[in-house]
Amino acid sequence: MTDTRQVRLMARAIQLAWRGRYSTHPNPRVGCVIARGDDILGEGWHERAGEAHAEIHALSKAGPAARGATAYVTLEPCSHFGRTPPCARALIDAGVAKVVVATMDPNPAVSGRGLAMLRDAGIRVTEGVLAEQARQLNPGFMKRMHCGRPYVRVKMAASLDGRTAMASGESQWITGAAARQDVQRLRAISDAILTGVGTVLADDPSLTVRRSELGDIGDATEPSRQPLRVIADRDARTPCDAKILHGGNVRLFCSSEALVTAPAQDLSALGVSVAGVRWKDNGIDLGEALDALGELGINDLLVEAGPTLAGTFVHERLLDELWLYQAPVFLGSTGRPTANLPLERMADKIQWTVKDQRQVGDDQRLILIPR
Amino acid sequence: MTDTRQVRLMARAIQLAWRGRYSTHPNPRVGCVIARGDDILGEGWHERAGEAHAEIHALSKAGPAARGATAYVTLEPCSHFGRTPPCARALIDAGVAKVVVATMDPNPAVSGRGLAMLRDAGIRVTEGVLAEQARQLNPGFMKRMHCGRPYVRVKMAASLDGRTAMASGESQWITGAAARQDVQRLRAISDAILTGVGTVLADDPSLTVRRSELGDIGDATEPSRQPLRVIADRDARTPCDAKILHGGNVRLFCSSEALVTAPAQDLSALGVSVAGVRWKDNGIDLGEALDALGELGINDLLVEAGPTLAGTFVHERLLDELWLYQAPVFLGSTGRPTANLPLERMADKIQWTVKDQRQVGDDQRLILIPR
Repeated sequence: MTDTRQVRLMARAIQLAWRGRYSTHPNPRVGCVIARGDDILGEGWHERAGEAHAEIHALSKAGPAARGATAYVTLEPCSHFGRTPPCARALIDAGVAKVVVATMDPNPAVSGRGLAMLRDAGIRVTEGVLAEQARQLNPGFMKRMHCGRPYVRVKMAASLDGRTAMASGESQWITGAAARQDVQRLRAISDAILTGVGTVLADDPSLTVRRSELGDIGDATEPSRQPLRVIADRDARTPCDAKILHGGNVRLFCSSEALVTAPAQDLSALGVSVAGVRWKDNGIDLGEALDALGELGINDLLVEAGPTLAGTFVHERLLDELWLYQAPVFLGSTGRPTANLPLERMADKIQWTVKDQRQVGDDQRLILIPR
Repeated sequence: MTDTRQVRLMARAIQLAWRGRYSTHPNPRVGCVIARGDDILGEGWHERAGEAHAEIHALSKAGPAARGATAYVTLEPCSHFGRTPPCARALIDAGVAKVVVATMDPNPAVSGRGLAMLRDAGIRVTEGVLAEQARQLNPGFMKRMHCGRPYVRVKMAASLDGRTAMASGESQWITGAAARQDVQRLRAISDAILTGVGTVLADDPSLTVRRSELGDIGDATEPSRQPLRVIADRDARTPCDAKILHGGNVRLFCSSEALVTAPAQDLSALGVSVAGVRWKDNGIDLGEALDALGELGINDLLVEAGPTLAGTFVHERLLDELWLYQAPVFLGSTGRPTANLPLERMADKIQWTVKDQRQVGDDQRLILIPR
């Protein structure tokens, strides 16, 4: 039975974990509370990969008082030596009497080992408290551990009549400053941002997180790096003076033919890594690209692309969430569409579940899940 | 100074007035409370044109206790004999000591006369309490009194990518049952529904209020009649077996040429009135049509039309509200547009203010005001 104290203290641990939303990648966001009864003795959250895990921070705050206390952790404590010693061992050494865990380690190969280590040491273990809320902390980490691919969020911005620009191509920011700040935050929780060469050539975006535009991030840990920028560019046409190449941490996906002929020296001088992937008639083989990004440790992928690449994610149902920003304007029936999505019959329509709807400045933001 | 008692009792009067939302047309919705201090002695609301006004109902409930009491009325009491005797006279005869009014009579020719009659009889008068909320009861009545035209609500239903049907014309209800019930309620607060002959020929709608589909209307007075159905049909092509012609109360706007050649006998046998209006290159002269509807006493006009007629209202900015229902689907970039709205330059874009946003079943409903 889940009791209210467990829920309350686990909710606090989840709140702490969120503080690492911009900084833990590729590690998961984890929070920990050490308590005796209702009294919190120590709190912690994982801040950055390579640094101490949440449990170690919380135990350190609690000090000797941790002996006989209960630890609330949002994710099963690790049982192996990674870049830091195993947290299960630290909890045992500190003498905690009980450990309450929200979710298991998502990696099927090691899931349960941390809890087994605790139980073997005579510690009482409860799991599953606020499990769904804790999974929501790390959808990308969870998905990558399960299937090797990142969690994919596709961002689109359109008018209420479903247009992004005029027929002539004339275009401008149609969403407001608040929506742009929201997108900055979306970038900041992402490990990588994917775009296509068409967008690079048309708009020359940098696709970086600009700290000043993030605004007040409250008690969150400061972002620790730029997301990896990924360009789908079959023929390696991205010009060397494109802004996106000049922020560091860039990967270019091209065809294996272009890989041979690409101006590799120029790109590598810029620190751009180039990889060959398969291409299909309608563009990059997204399955192969997602596998490749998973292998790079990308948990959360944001797609900020033109109507063709974004439309392919929708058409092939390879996205987990669509973030649709709707500006309160009509651009008219001759304008360019939200996404290039050639559907012929009503039966082919794409159905969404609305996960979240809110007003962001003057714009609407919908988070949609494919049904 | 507006005091809290005045606000509280006027809010109650407004609540009462809403009960007439489906039944007072062409009269305004009006509510009245008779109170002594905080004690409510009588309440009333206008139910149907030709029947007693709100003040008469409330005075009748209060009886002799009304002497020396205060009357709260959402609209300035009338000072003239219409289908009923003047309410200002009734308030004087009942001996009320004070009258609090939310809004003045919107008809500039008579505005203020009711209050003058009360003051002349020695009654203290306060006006302007919750004025904006009271105006919202009767946007159509207010607008018609000021400029002779009805308040225009255009209804559209589209996918989140701004499409209403497939390129082939294949179509089906894309919004859900809750949205359709919501549209029934929108029809029921409307005095008239305008559509075009294209919609009649393509969909053969009846455009009636179906009481069973309205659902539970709480303490509102039952709808007393069908809204007038209006068809914009330049060449009088509406077939005599069209469903819309068979619910009674139908008006057909055609060109003056068609007025001569139209099968007048057939239509008048069905009870359809036919009127000639001017047509322009892109369709009916909407200004002239709105003037004609205002002369017919139409306060609230609902436009349920195809993409061309609906688009013209937007293009010519002749609507007061757009009710946009968005189904959580994508129909794809080749689908038919929300509205035929040929805009060439970004500077021509139509900007909206979001007056209301809510979830209606699985769909989003936005009420948009042209900026």
